[in-house]
Amino acid sequence: MRKIAVVGIGQTKSGEHWGSSLRDLAKEAGKAALQDAGLNPQALFVGNMSAGRFAGQEHLGALVADTLGLRVPSTRVEGACASGALAFRKACLAIASGRYDVAMALGVEKMTDLPTEEAVTSLMAAGDQEQEASVGLTFSGVFALIANLYMNRYKLSREELALIPVKNHKNGVNNPYAQFNFEVTVDDVLKSPLIADPLRLLDCSPISDGSAAVVLASEAFARQCKDPVWVLASEQATDALALQNRKDLCTLGSVVQASKEAYARAGLAPKDIDLVEAHDCFSIAELLAYEDLGFSEKGWGKELLISGEVCIGGSIPFNPSGGLKLGHPVGATGIKQINEVVKQLRGCAANQIRGARTGMTQNLGGSGATAVVSIFRGDA
Amino acid sequence: MRKIAVVGIGQTKSGEHWGSSLRDLAKEAGKAALQDAGLNPQALFVGNMSAGRFAGQEHLGALVADTLGLRVPSTRVEGACASGALAFRKACLAIASGRYDVAMALGVEKMTDLPTEEAVTSLMAAGDQEQEASVGLTFSGVFALIANLYMNRYKLSREELALIPVKNHKNGVNNPYAQFNFEVTVDDVLKSPLIADPLRLLDCSPISDGSAAVVLASEAFARQCKDPVWVLASEQATDALALQNRKDLCTLGSVVQASKEAYARAGLAPKDIDLVEAHDCFSIAELLAYEDLGFSEKGWGKELLISGEVCIGGSIPFNPSGGLKLGHPVGATGIKQINEVVKQLRGCAANQIRGARTGMTQNLGGSGATAVVSIFRGDA
Repeated sequence: MRKIAVVGIGQTKSGEHWGSSLRDLAKEAGKAALQDAGLNPQALFVGNMSAGRFAGQEHLGALVADTLGLRVPSTRVEGACASGALAFRKACLAIASGRYDVAMALGVEKMTDLPTEEAVTSLMAAGDQEQEASVGLTFSGVFALIANLYMNRYKLSREELALIPVKNHKNGVNNPYAQFNFEVTVDDVLKSPLIADPLRLLDCSPISDGSAAVVLASEAFARQCKDPVWVLASEQATDALALQNRKDLCTLGSVVQASKEAYARAGLAPKDIDLVEAHDCFSIAELLAYEDLGFSEKGWGKELLISGEVCIGGSIPFNPSGGLKLGHPVGATGIKQINEVVKQLRGCAANQIRGARTGMTQNLGGSGATAVVSIFRGDA
Repeated sequence: MRKIAVVGIGQTKSGEHWGSSLRDLAKEAGKAALQDAGLNPQALFVGNMSAGRFAGQEHLGALVADTLGLRVPSTRVEGACASGALAFRKACLAIASGRYDVAMALGVEKMTDLPTEEAVTSLMAAGDQEQEASVGLTFSGVFALIANLYMNRYKLSREELALIPVKNHKNGVNNPYAQFNFEVTVDDVLKSPLIADPLRLLDCSPISDGSAAVVLASEAFARQCKDPVWVLASEQATDALALQNRKDLCTLGSVVQASKEAYARAGLAPKDIDLVEAHDCFSIAELLAYEDLGFSEKGWGKELLISGEVCIGGSIPFNPSGGLKLGHPVGATGIKQINEVVKQLRGCAANQIRGARTGMTQNLGGSGATAVVSIFRGDA
């Protein structure tokens, strides 16, 4: 396959954008990425989970092309909360095919126009409507089931699990795109309202509006740009949609498979990765990622937390940007993660990891029925 | 780019499938295509417009993979009523990239679980929510605006426009997958209830449940299959989402552009095409297609109707299957069209066009903000 690089990035702040429409958000992120790249895309891929429910608007491909004044083939791609990374991966395949040399992947979601209860119901459309939503399960409920089993089986304490949001809030203090810029303590997490036992408010990513975009180019075009960041691998895997049809709740099989394939394509191992932007939609999800991405044996992920290895300054920092905990505009999240890794590999991140050369993103759809794992390398 | 062929097809009957879920419909079409191909896909692309609104279910990629027992990367692709053709085209690009050799594109929509008024509102999410839906425009209204201007500018009579549904109902009488198997007369069309002046009930495609699938393969794999049908071109174009932002309402610019590119890639001209499965969501849309696909000068399309050239036995039969008029399960439609063309090029269609060797599909999203035009050639 042809070599591909990210040559432009852009994003909005995550948050409650009462004054901005879907169009406004996409325009802000898209224009920033186009300006950063200095290239005009020949194709556009739009990641969005549920504008049909959140805003009464499908056909997002045409909407975003319109908004950016791009008269190019434009396609919406959806895989629940992995929609962004899926759009990115389709853009990679489109360039790899030789049909295009420059493509844009843009994720956008406008979630706060619905009352919170309706937004929560809409988000459950990422799970199995017939087997999960219909019996009253919510997404915090899905991850609470996983957390309960994991805590019981692997003797993880509630305090240990709280170290994840504590770390991510600390990381996000300097992130100008984060929805929140305050630190929290273990005590704050344990005293925050119970959402779905054992998960509390500060274990959950927020409901966010936001958009993020990247411009991708084939090698010949990327060489003309400053600071190209090379896509060494972008792999995708699928597992059963409903939890009850999975082999094991404490392992996300799609993440294991996608990361194995990504490592193989990149010719790398976990020890070669300098940082990870991972899908911490709920605290437990980041802990599973330590293990399912191969940084720890199953059941031992908490050691990386306790020792500080996943903190900035540790051997494998997870979510130096603050992660989803500080903003999860679902269709944009996968591309927001890529923005953050690209900044790290360009050496200009808010929480710069010294000497970062190889970075990884991991984006989940639903409770892991879809996973995308990508590996990037800076040119420096 | 690598040569690609369709090596398997399958579809459900279009209709009101009260006893079938989204899963059931996808399973029936998918299993049929897999059996026809005799190959296992390495990737899956699911075309669906609005299961989030119609069935409370997003994440269709994982749902369909699950249903078919395929643990392969699976992605939902959406472009309103062009979702099916977009999924097909992404499958083509994925194979062209060299990453996969066999892929499946499957379209599915379950529309009849909502009351008709809610389904009509949901369908308008294919247009512009802010600029069109919010002022009360429906999709029949959108095409009625086009029809009024066209009839006035090019002196098309109401009776002449009615020849399109008359032809398509006649063509569909023998189609086992059609939602309706009865003929209608011009008088029937003119006496059917007014929906949006000048369009009447029999000018409109129905609300349908249904699914269709195709299996695609790279040349090396396709050569092992019986009756491969080669994809000579599959091109996509984008126009403004809202009618008011188009240059001209009587020409769908996206169709003109996509077809020009498709002819160029295939090295063919309109005279080389033996039949077309076109997007007759409303009668006027098929008339525009005669012209925008290059079979007639602008304003003269009706001559093809009056002379019978677009009928079976004419020089360029349009919708020998009966078209969308006899079933429009929106996310499945683009792939249903490909099923019909493949049957023609295999020589086994219900209304077989004698000597058919080269066929075309044209699939629209919304009122033409998205268009996909593909050209196929049989091996015989």
